[in-house]
Amino acid sequence: MTIKISIDCMGGDHGPAVTIPAAISFLKQESEAELILVGREDELRAELKKQHADSHPRLSVKNATEVVAMDDPIEVALRRKKDSSMRVAIELVKDGSANACVSAGNTGALMAVSRYVLKTMADVDRPAICSILPNEKGKPTYMLDLGANVDCEPHHLHQFAIMGSVLCSAMEGIGKPTIGLLNVGTEDIKGNEVVKATATLLRADHERGALNFYGNIEGNDIFKGTTDVVVCDGFVGNVTLKAIEGLAHFFKSAFRDNLLSMLGALIAYKSLKKLNPKSYNGAGLLGLKGLVFKSHGGADAYGFEWAIRRAFDAAKYNVQEQLSTMIAELMPKSTPAEAPGATIKQSSV
Amino acid sequence: MTIKISIDCMGGDHGPAVTIPAAISFLKQESEAELILVGREDELRAELKKQHADSHPRLSVKNATEVVAMDDPIEVALRRKKDSSMRVAIELVKDGSANACVSAGNTGALMAVSRYVLKTMADVDRPAICSILPNEKGKPTYMLDLGANVDCEPHHLHQFAIMGSVLCSAMEGIGKPTIGLLNVGTEDIKGNEVVKATATLLRADHERGALNFYGNIEGNDIFKGTTDVVVCDGFVGNVTLKAIEGLAHFFKSAFRDNLLSMLGALIAYKSLKKLNPKSYNGAGLLGLKGLVFKSHGGADAYGFEWAIRRAFDAAKYNVQEQLSTMIAELMPKSTPAEAPGATIKQSSV
Repeated sequence: MTIKISIDCMGGDHGPAVTIPAAISFLKQESEAELILVGREDELRAELKKQHADSHPRLSVKNATEVVAMDDPIEVALRRKKDSSMRVAIELVKDGSANACVSAGNTGALMAVSRYVLKTMADVDRPAICSILPNEKGKPTYMLDLGANVDCEPHHLHQFAIMGSVLCSAMEGIGKPTIGLLNVGTEDIKGNEVVKATATLLRADHERGALNFYGNIEGNDIFKGTTDVVVCDGFVGNVTLKAIEGLAHFFKSAFRDNLLSMLGALIAYKSLKKLNPKSYNGAGLLGLKGLVFKSHGGADAYGFEWAIRRAFDAAKYNVQEQLSTMIAELMPKSTPAEAPGATIKQSSV
Repeated sequence: MTIKISIDCMGGDHGPAVTIPAAISFLKQESEAELILVGREDELRAELKKQHADSHPRLSVKNATEVVAMDDPIEVALRRKKDSSMRVAIELVKDGSANACVSAGNTGALMAVSRYVLKTMADVDRPAICSILPNEKGKPTYMLDLGANVDCEPHHLHQFAIMGSVLCSAMEGIGKPTIGLLNVGTEDIKGNEVVKATATLLRADHERGALNFYGNIEGNDIFKGTTDVVVCDGFVGNVTLKAIEGLAHFFKSAFRDNLLSMLGALIAYKSLKKLNPKSYNGAGLLGLKGLVFKSHGGADAYGFEWAIRRAFDAAKYNVQEQLSTMIAELMPKSTPAEAPGATIKQSSV
């Protein structure tokens, strides 16, 4: 079976210099993959030539004349750049030419354009961003939402839990992933009103065997791997994720302080590698009528290749179909309708 | 000038075995300090004897027959353990026998008992927990609230900003510390409604020269040291802090994976030491009519000594008086009155 992935080759901090080597390397690993490179054709062909891959049988180029810049406001990406590499890559998913799409572009723009082009799935109020983080059990922790929705109601968090559970189940082959609700303590009385009401919804699903709700968890449980899935609103998720990235950067900079500690870090490298955030690159935009994956904007080729891998696996494991089924089965039909233009996070995750 | 600190010697995971060696060591460093050790007198005297410090001229013992356990509900600490070491230590601040108090006990209980015994300062709606974190500039980042208030209105966050600024100014000798509002992006349009309204309040203070408001910051700015003070609600603050602790633990456990990486970590130790969280122990409970500092429950003697140091410095630099002055000056008098019994976080920070 061939799985086709469209790649926004112009997105991210580095553009084709990173996205194309990543694509070529991925094709070497994965014989079932076919990649459609989207962007300014001359630039893409030049980079392909440089990489001696201008006639790869499973690579094609789709021209798109515009580029969504990392600091473009959502409105610009949405209304003024209709031939952007980002948009064209997503349109390939919509028209069935690709099974999933990958972009390292501006998160807010990617979410907005994806919602506009693909539309939101039936019974889903708001798509969410789901990423994976490494944990002490040596497995990935699936966490969502990471910034698409800064003001959430309980039924939004409930939907995030269902979507995160489906993604984790499909990608990791876990029957019923455990779901933790991020909170300031583990007891039922803890938390703000939204979180408490969400716990009630999730407990009801748990009791009828629909979801595997573990209960409240705390910030440190993300890295302990207490649950397979961690649910939170986009404000908390985004701040937490960026604080984590900030601390990781701080550690790295401390190591670079002097030669001796660089040497130490080098020796400890094998263990540190386990924490390599690059291999955890590739966040899913869940709840759309199509699969879109977001790479970190600053990812190098190795990191971007992991994002392609995530999109490929999601398509291979039929995440989209499983999402539809689970949502149709679990989502309460009485969900209040959402006003159009709900808050969308703009900066990169 | 002598500064007296009351110490809840029974609190935390280790009790007198940690608190008393820390107290003795601190007295060696600080000739102006006088410490009042609070707890079960026989246990404290036994530990003092063990440490050959049973007749130190600047150490006294105050008997308290009960102990607030780390998992005691707030109600138990508040209503049933009226002779707890925690409560007696706080009462010594109230009656003027001590200039500040330190406890490693249960955060929720410490906040509740402090509020009950000392009362909240005039014009402050809710006390907040303010801790320091290391940053890449080699300075501390003051962050609040870290869990006392999970549901916040803009005027609460506004008050946290004022209190954090005063503490940072007094402790670090910075005239007008920069204040960052934790958000999902730096632009004014970013964030949820509470954060946007808070920014408006802080900008007004900035424009009239009352506070030094930097603007919105993101999670990674905490460790970059972009601003001296970071303001957020207690839900976001608590989850972020615990996620950070979780990641730090993950790094440590990765280093312990094998002998070689332990060696590497050892070589890199000098740089890692800079990040030593122990020296950043001691969170201030701000907004009470008296100074209370909270040590991490699991702190060792070295860490607990840092919490005593924080309390001592806060008393020495007249933080309480400065808080009163700044709050009287800056706090809008139209602040809505707060219902009693506002949410208090219970688990340890």
